Order: sequence, then structure tokens, then C-alpha cells
Amino acid sequence: MTQTMDDKKIIKVHDSDNVAIVIGQGGVNAGTELQAGLIAVADIPQGHKVALSDIPSGAEVIRYSEIIGTATETIPLGGHVNEHNIALRQPPALHELESATREYGPPERLEGYTFQGYRNADGSVGTKNVLGITTSVQCVAGTVEHVVKRIKAELLPKYPNVDDVVGLTHTYGCGVAINAPAAIIPIRTLKNITLNPNFGGEVMVIGLGCEKLQPSTLVSEQPVKMYDSSEEASATGNILSLQDEQFVGFAEMVAGIMAMAEQHLAKLNQRRREPCPVSELVVGTQCGGSDAFSGVTANPAVGFAADLIVRAGGTVMFSEVTEVRDAIHLLSPRVVDKGVGEKLVQEMQWYDDYLAQGQADRSANPSPGNKSGGLSNVIEKALGSIAKSGTSPIVDVLGPGERISKRGLNFVATPASDFICGTLQLAAGMNMHVFTTGRGTPYGLSMVPVIKVGTNTTLSRRWHDLIDLDAGRIASGEATIETMGWELFHLILEIASGREQAAVDRLGIHNDLALFNPAPVT
Amino acid sequence: MTQTMDDKKIIKVHDSDNVAIVIGQGGVNAGTELQAGLIAVADIPQGHKVALSDIPSGAEVIRYSEIIGTATETIPLGGHVNEHNIALRQPPALHELESATREYGPPERLEGYTFQGYRNADGSVGTKNVLGITTSVQCVAGTVEHVVKRIKAELLPKYPNVDDVVGLTHTYGCGVAINAPAAIIPIRTLKNITLNPNFGGEVMVIGLGCEKLQPSTLVSEQPVKMYDSSEEASATGNILSLQDEQFVGFAEMVAGIMAMAEQHLAKLNQRRREPCPVSELVVGTQCGGSDAFSGVTANPAVGFAADLIVRAGGTVMFSEVTEVRDAIHLLSPRVVDKGVGEKLVQEMQWYDDYLAQGQADRSANPSPGNKSGGLSNVIEKALGSIAKSGTSPIVDVLGPGERISKRGLNFVATPASDFICGTLQLAAGMNMHVFTTGRGTPYGLSMVPVIKVGTNTTLSRRWHDLIDLDAGRIASGEATIETMGWELFHLILEIASGREQAAVDRLGIHNDLALFNPAPVT
Repeated sequence: MTQTMDDKKIIKVHDSDNVAIVIGQGGVNAGTELQAGLIAVADIPQGHKVALSDIPSGAEVIRYSEIIGTATETIPLGGHVNEHNIALRQPPALHELESATREYGPPERLEGYTFQGYRNADGSVGTKNVLGITTSVQCVAGTVEHVVKRIKAELLPKYPNVDDVVGLTHTYGCGVAINAPAAIIPIRTLKNITLNPNFGGEVMVIGLGCEKLQPSTLVSEQPVKMYDSSEEASATGNILSLQDEQFVGFAEMVAGIMAMAEQHLAKLNQRRREPCPVSELVVGTQCGGSDAFSGVTANPAVGFAADLIVRAGGTVMFSEVTEVRDAIHLLSPRVVDKGVGEKLVQEMQWYDDYLAQGQADRSANPSPGNKSGGLSNVIEKALGSIAKSGTSPIVDVLGPGERISKRGLNFVATPASDFICGTLQLAAGMNMHVFTTGRGTPYGLSMVPVIKVGTNTTLSRRWHDLIDLDAGRIASGEATIETMGWELFHLILEIASGREQAAVDRLGIHNDLALFNPAPVT
Repeated sequence: MTQTMDDKKIIKVHDSDNVAIVIGQGGVNAGTELQAGLIAVADIPQGHKVALSDIPSGAEVIRYSEIIGTATETIPLGGHVNEHNIALRQPPALHELESATREYGPPERLEGYTFQGYRNADGSVGTKNVLGITTSVQCVAGTVEHVVKRIKAELLPKYPNVDDVVGLTHTYGCGVAINAPAAIIPIRTLKNITLNPNFGGEVMVIGLGCEKLQPSTLVSEQPVKMYDSSEEASATGNILSLQDEQFVGFAEMVAGIMAMAEQHLAKLNQRRREPCPVSELVVGTQCGGSDAFSGVTANPAVGFAADLIVRAGGTVMFSEVTEVRDAIHLLSPRVVDKGVGEKLVQEMQWYDDYLAQGQADRSANPSPGNKSGGLSNVIEKALGSIAKSGTSPIVDVLGPGERISKRGLNFVATPASDFICGTLQLAAGMNMHVFTTGRGTPYGLSMVPVIKVGTNTTLSRRWHDLIDLDAGRIASGEATIETMGWELFHLILEIASGREQAAVDRLGIHNDLALFNPAPVT
């Protein structure tokens, strides 16, 4: 702990709050004086809440100037407030929400910042140069992974401007109720992922042949054509199906995929970075393994950086329906018009119904680790989570798997599951990813750079090689939300330009896609 | 085509059938004489059905002596019968089924066959010797895959009796409604996979720390303890969580996993094969990429081999609810008692409800490729699918993710999706896998040997290095169901003993687990 941290033992977010969180590593013991007139009457772990006044049974517990629950017993001044002594309230009623009521002044434009990106023919801009190989069905995933290894070893070194080759494998395509209403979600997700700017329009599709999801659903169809010269096989096209009768045996399938890959690698190898305005950034934000610091350090810093990007004309998305649902009354006033407000309510209602159908509700969140980290319930988690959205107006709301069409701050409705959310943000078109964590997660994607922001210094130091930025310095007073927000903004530009590498890219830790399929499997 | 195939142009399964399927590669043109008095009046592709009499509109179309649909138009003698001119009927009503009515004579025991297996302390027998590394949460999947590569390269060569190291990664563990009723399915699946006999009781769990699914749910808990000698790190235990404070940075996490893996590799390396009776085999059967030959060549041959294994005291499972649902009236009489009959009905009802909840039904199956292969609808597919079960009594019915407890023929209720079914059969305890395919799929698992049986010679020849056994020889008259069944039985014993390798193991094509999670994600 630094000297500064010793000076300040708790963080109170808002004047009206009747709880604050304990800052220091290891927490505090009963009897510790936390500030003048406030003595802990119980042992309180790091990040957990202390009562700033006597809170009678049934009274409201206030954090972020919002009600996070009601006391289930009388909690004395200095007492430990946690999931065992506060009760969850009903979430805000969706039909009573005020929509588009916030007044926004003229935008305070931010000029003069650029990054080095890859411009694509469709106008989008990439931050990496990656050969994406998707599949129309899970049956070919093992084959694709097998071939990707060979492409990396044998072909990639010949194309030095290409950063990576990625198998966009998944568990969809057959053995699924492809005509069920909710099947639209995984299908449009897979289709829109092929349009992600980092793939430069060169995505290949490997299919089987007999699957329900036909490859032409995903890309405009150019079936593979093989040519045999005296030297070696070459190929054109972007779709190859293993059952195609031209392939006799596995070795020929592999050779076909390799030949097709080489053609796309050659095209990608011609891409060059050029200066691009920040308005071409599409930043996906997410939090995972959150703790009570998330909402006062890393997430507000991300929100500040998000505002900078929006002011520069860029695009930011935030997501995670179950982690905004209880703070929806704070978001609904921020939408730009009633139409967007209706979309927001529809997405919330869809998820309420989806959870109810499975006999669950939003209290399935938070996780045990969130609770150990001081987050008593999903209301407190949501209030911290939405800090990532900053203060900009919400220009659009997208359903899961849809692609962004408006610059500015977008709400992209996704599950909070990190991998599903990341996959859906990829489909939405993100070219940069910012991920905050308090408990710690090695989350990484190979398709876009993932910047990891630690919410507390304890974690950021222990995971020194996994965390890119320590927002815990806000708690200790070494930084402010504003300085940290600017630091993150500059880091985004450096990493988007390929001048710095994100920690997970340095270490080579990359997760697979995880599709959201709320429709039945068969 | 062989001489024999030229002699016989169609296969009629049962005397009462009014359709037969066309055998030869390329199908037949209109005007071809198929047998005395039968001339094709349309072009009919290979595997597709020809009408053996005039079938009036509204009349029943009969194959396998069962009604597979009703004609939607008058189909002339020699006409092409397919999904466009037959209508799907309602599936058999579950409350009207006759249960446990089939009389079985005393079992005709088969003696004298053994295989070389790995006996485990719990009495189960393995057919491979594999270090399984599972995870309690998807967050660590990228890390596990990263470390598995290093273990394979750096440690595995030191333990020559160990066949492989497998990351049992999946998309469950957090961001899920873990208390929803249906969550029991993925949770028991993951737990029971750790008990699969091929892992020899040495499965390790890599966790994160903050996840909902705690590692102790999966294995009896022995948290990792690290020891630093002057030389290198060593470890005991079977659970390692990345958030554990003893790991400072990613490199230490990797070192911890490697050290723990080495301890388990050393134990596995002491396993030795020994002669085991066939009663220790647990064979999972599956079909995927089926065609109209499946039900007359490969599946009946698998059924014959299944009967041999059951006669020798072994265990066979068949699965795929949507592909038995329409033939359930043929299975229900075969259960050993009313209790098992009730379990069978319950599993069917559960799936009917599950599909209805997603606004789908069993007509979501078959796939376009099944139809191209001659399977007009799910009834015809089901009648061919259940041929895999042979003729033995059904001793038990298991829910998805449950573990087998009775020797003999078991129905394990799973989706028909190949990967989900395979994952659930792994959880049920299979130590051998037999997979039939007509259209072709490169399906493979690294955890158990997968024998691929081709339903037709066209595929088996083209995919010469991917198919282990060509059951298409039954259609051409070169083999019978009985000779092919015995051939498969002997091949199972050879591969189970490690004396031969399955094609997918030779080629190294292996798919990941695919969990069945009918509960909501959050």
C-alpha cells in the first residue's frame, strides 16, 4: 500500500450515500478508525461496504446516490454491509421509464487525434490485419483448427504484413432449430462477424456440404475452384465444402484450404496502415470479474475515455443486459429519441422474458467472486457497470448480433457473459476492445486488441503481465478519473495503431468465439 | 460400381414397403429399368426413393414396414418419392405407448472375446490413457489451450505410456443462470466427464476463482500446493485457480499448471494395458450426415455389433432424441420394465416441450444434406437411426449428462447434434465410439477412439483416409449385415486395445466438447 492509500481508507461515491467501500488490501479489522467518527465494528474485507450511519431494518441502502437495496436487519454505524443484510428490490418497471428526457448541449468536439489503421473498401477501418476462416457448421471445426496450425507454420511467414490467421470456429450450423424465431441471433452474428473490419473483406468459409446453415448465408458466394499447375495447387473463391466431390481424401481437403488461404493472404499482405481519424474507431467496452472498485475506478475511467472518443466522432458500445437492467432508469433518459428508447425497452423486455422462460431472473448475476469483491447484488453491480458508458447521448440500441450503423455511443444488447458479449461486439463491428476486471480474468481475443484495465492496484500488481492499465491508482489518489481516462484514450490509439501490443497479445492468450443461441438445439 | 451393384439397382427393406431406394452412384435416369416391371419415370438420385406401385394422393408411403408419411399427390409406379410429395405425420402419442411388452428369451451369451484395456481403481476400464484438464469456467479456456500446447511439447515426451493431453474446455461456468432448473444438465455433464474411464481418475481442474461453478463441484477437492526446490517447481493437488494469490503473473500460473500436470502424468504413465472381457466396453453409437443408406447398411451393421457386445456382457448406448422420437413406438416395447418405459416417455416429453418452448418441433431435423441423401423427413430418418440399437432389450434410460449404471443396451437422451451427443456420451462413460455417416463428416474426439463407418461405397472410397469401415458393401452385396457386424465388432476390439488406430486419430482431427445447456445465459 502506498502512503496515499494509508491516508484515505474508504471511498464514498456521492454525498447522499449511506455506505462507502474499504480501499486497502486485506481490508480492515474491527476497531479500525476509517475516518473521523467512523470506526469499523466488524472486520470488513477490501472493497466491501461500511455503513456511514445507523441503517434501520427496512431502510434504504444508498450507493451512487441510488437505492441498492433495503436493510434486512438494523446495521449499525461502522457495520459491514453485504449480500447477507440487504435485500434485492424489484428492477425499474419498463413501462414507467422516462425516455429521451436528458438535454444535451452542442457536442464539444475533440479534434486532432489520429491512429494508424487499415482502410477497407467498404469504408471501415481495421486495427489488425487478420485472415479469418469461419465455418458454416461445427462439424468442420476440428479440420479448420488443424489447418490453421499448418497455415500459421507454413504460409504466414511468407506474408509478413498479415498479423495472424484465426479459425472463427463455433458450435452452430447444424443440429439446431434453424427456423425457430430466435435462430436469427446466431445466424446474423456469424454473418456480421465476417464483416468485422480487421478481416479486410477476405474471410473464407469452410463448410461441410449437408449442413442447415449454408455458407452462402455468411458471405457472397464464390465457391472454390482448384487449379493444379505442375508445381502446386492454387485456388480462387471464398467457400470450400469438405463434401465437395473434387476433394478425394483428407489430404486434398487440407491442400484445398491451404491454397485458398494463400490467395487471401496475398491480398491481405497488400494492406498498409495509414493515418485515420478517431472517428473510425469502434470501441467495445466490457467488464468481467468485477468488484466494488469497478464502479469507482476502472469503469468511470473507461467512461471518460468513451466520452473522448465520442467527442472525436468515434463509436463506443456498451452491453450486458443483466448488468444494466437495474440501472435502466439512468440510461433511458439519455437516448436521443423515443424510437431508440423503445428499442432499449424492447431489449430489456426480451431478456426479462428469456430469463423467466428458463425460470431464472437477473438475480442469477452477480457471481460468488463479485460478492467476495464487495458487490452485494446485481443493482450495485449494474450501477458500477454503466459507468463505462460515460455521459454521452445514446444514439442507437442494437439487438444481439446486429451491426452498428451510427457513430456515437451505442447500447448493444448482449448477455453479460464475457465471451458471448465479446463475440456479439465483434459482430457489431468493434475494432478495439476495452475490458475492466477487479478479480482478474485472462480474457483475450485474437481478432481485435483487448486492453485490460485493472480496477484495483492489488490485482494490477499481482497480474503485472496481464493487466495493461492500473485504474486502482484512482482509489489511492495517485490518479484521477480524468487523468486515467486520458491515459486510456492514448493507449487505445497506440494499440490501435500497432505501435504497442496488448498484454494478451504479447502472451498469446486468446479465447474462441462463444455464440448466443437462445433457440433450441435438435 | 461393381458388377454386383449393376445386378441389383434398388434396396427394398421389407416386403410390405411400397418404396425402395436407388443404390448406384449417380442415381438413375428416367427410363431405366430398375427391376422386372419397374421403370423409373423420373431421374432419381442415389439413395432416393422410387415408388414400387401407384401411390394415390393421401395414401400411406411405407418403408421399413412403417408409415413414413402420406402422399401429397398421386405418385406413379417408378416415380421419385421425396420431401416434396410426402407429408409428415404426427409423431406417436406418448401416453398411448405400449411399454415393456416384448418377450425376450434367455440371453445367448457370447464368450471368449477380450481386449487390452487400462483397469482403473473404480472398476472402470479405459481404452486410451489421457491426461484430461477440465475447467470450471470458460474464462480460463484460452490459458488451458495455451498450456496444453506446452505440456504436449515439453512434458508428454517424458511419459511415453500416456497417449495424449486434452483440454476439456467448454463455454460454461459463469455468465449462466446456475440455479435455473435446467442447469443441472451442463453441471452433471462436466462432473461426469471427469469420471470417464480414459482419464484414469487423474483429471485436473483449472478454475479462475470468482466463477459460479466452483471447481469442487467437479472433483473431490485437493487444491494445488506448490513447492519450490532449487531445481524447479513441483506441485500436488488437482485444482488450480488462476486468481490464487500464490501466482504472481501469467508465467507463474503456467508454471503451476505445468507442475501439477507433471505429477498427474507420472501417475498415468504407470498404467498398463491388461486383458479385459468385452463386458468392460461401453460403446457410444451415433450417426451424423446420414443418408437413405444409413438405415440399411451402416446402422444395421452397428446394431448387429451392438447385439454382440451386449451378448458378451458389455454396454452399448444409443441416443439422439429427435431421431428416435418418430420411432418411439418401436422402442417402448423393448424396455425391460414399466419404470424404464416411464423414463423413456419422460425424456421424449421433455424434448417435445423444450422444442415447443423455442417455437420449433422435431421437423427441424433432417438437414438439407440428409434430404439430398434421400431422407425425406424425420420419420424416415428415425427409422434408420434406431437400427443402431440392434435387437437387445433396453435396460435403462438416462437423462442428458447422467452416467450409465447398468450393463446392456441403454438409451441416453441427448440432442442429435453430433458434438453435443458425443459430449453427453462421454459423460455417460463411453470408452469406445462408433459413428456412421453417409454424406461424410470429419467428426473426431481425442478422449475416446471414434470408429467411422461409411454407409455407402461412394463416400467410403472418396474419403478413403477418413472412413474406417465401408458398410456400403452391404448395398452392393459384397457383405451382409451379419458379416459387416462381426467385422465392426473385431475392429472395436482392435482399436480398444490400441493395436490399431482410428482414422481420425491417425490424422489428428479432434473436436472440442459442446455442452448442452438448455438454461439461460446471463
